[in-house]
Amino acid sequence: MFSFRAIGRVRSPYKATAEIPKGLGTKHPAEGVLDISPEFEAGLLDIEGFSHLFVIWVFDRSEGFELTGTPPSDNRPHGVFATRSPRRPNPIGLTVVELLRREGTQLYVRGVDMLDGTPIVDIKPYLSSVPQESLRRGWLADAEARKTNTK
Amino acid sequence: MFSFRAIGRVRSPYKATAEIPKGLGTKHPAEGVLDISPEFEAGLLDIEGFSHLFVIWVFDRSEGFELTGTPPSDNRPHGVFATRSPRRPNPIGLTVVELLRREGTQLYVRGVDMLDGTPIVDIKPYLSSVPQESLRRGWLADAEARKTNTK
Repeated sequence: MFSFRAIGRVRSPYKATAEIPKGLGTKHPAEGVLDISPEFEAGLLDIEGFSHLFVIWVFDRSEGFELTGTPPSDNRPHGVFATRSPRRPNPIGLTVVELLRREGTQLYVRGVDMLDGTPIVDIKPYLSSVPQESLRRGWLADAEARKTNTK
Repeated sequence: MFSFRAIGRVRSPYKATAEIPKGLGTKHPAEGVLDISPEFEAGLLDIEGFSHLFVIWVFDRSEGFELTGTPPSDNRPHGVFATRSPRRPNPIGLTVVELLRREGTQLYVRGVDMLDGTPIVDIKPYLSSVPQESLRRGWLADAEARKTNTK
């Protein structure tokens, strides 16, 4: 077992899971704050130079897990490691956010999809992208195609 | 505190940290295997449809942390959250790999930069990229520019 502690909390407009946009084609334009504990402030040196960050966080209000489940974006079940379900063997979340500005230990960001108060366990710089034309998106692309065909 | 367990291990050609390519412009073409524990096999359903995966793992051979440090790609110190240093408050690693094929609980991948035996705590599908032209890469871009100018 590996034990991790919160290095800070997310300040988000979402107070309940039902408020978070879900499903096909969802955008996450919501702004929020990564509120880092003062003891870790030195670790933020030069972070403002990056436009995007990976935020690794904990689904602290999720209980238990299912190895397969039907996500909001489809009507067929898929393996949990092929989805972003919160009900995972280790309830770890990963979000890419755009860094708007830093004020001390507060990172103002766009793209939050976490609940208010969510514990953050790590932040990393987003350094490069897989070119969009190289990506295959499996069941999600299939679900999108079925939705388009039935319109 | 949050406790996580390994859902599997990385099989990698790297037996020691010194063997892992580091520094500016490093590519990670190494192939390896994400060897998932049989109890989690059902969670891999449909994962083969995705070309790329996020692997979240633990720097299990890293000890302690430093809030600032000088990465191999620069000669100036930066905050740990602006780098990919293994010596982090929570020693969590994140790697994007290309999924080559699946054989049962073994995911054959390209792009490993982990040591052999590294514990995996989560796998997620890579669904979309930030367009390269939207990325700012802070101190890393500065270090690259300095290197180019002194050539």
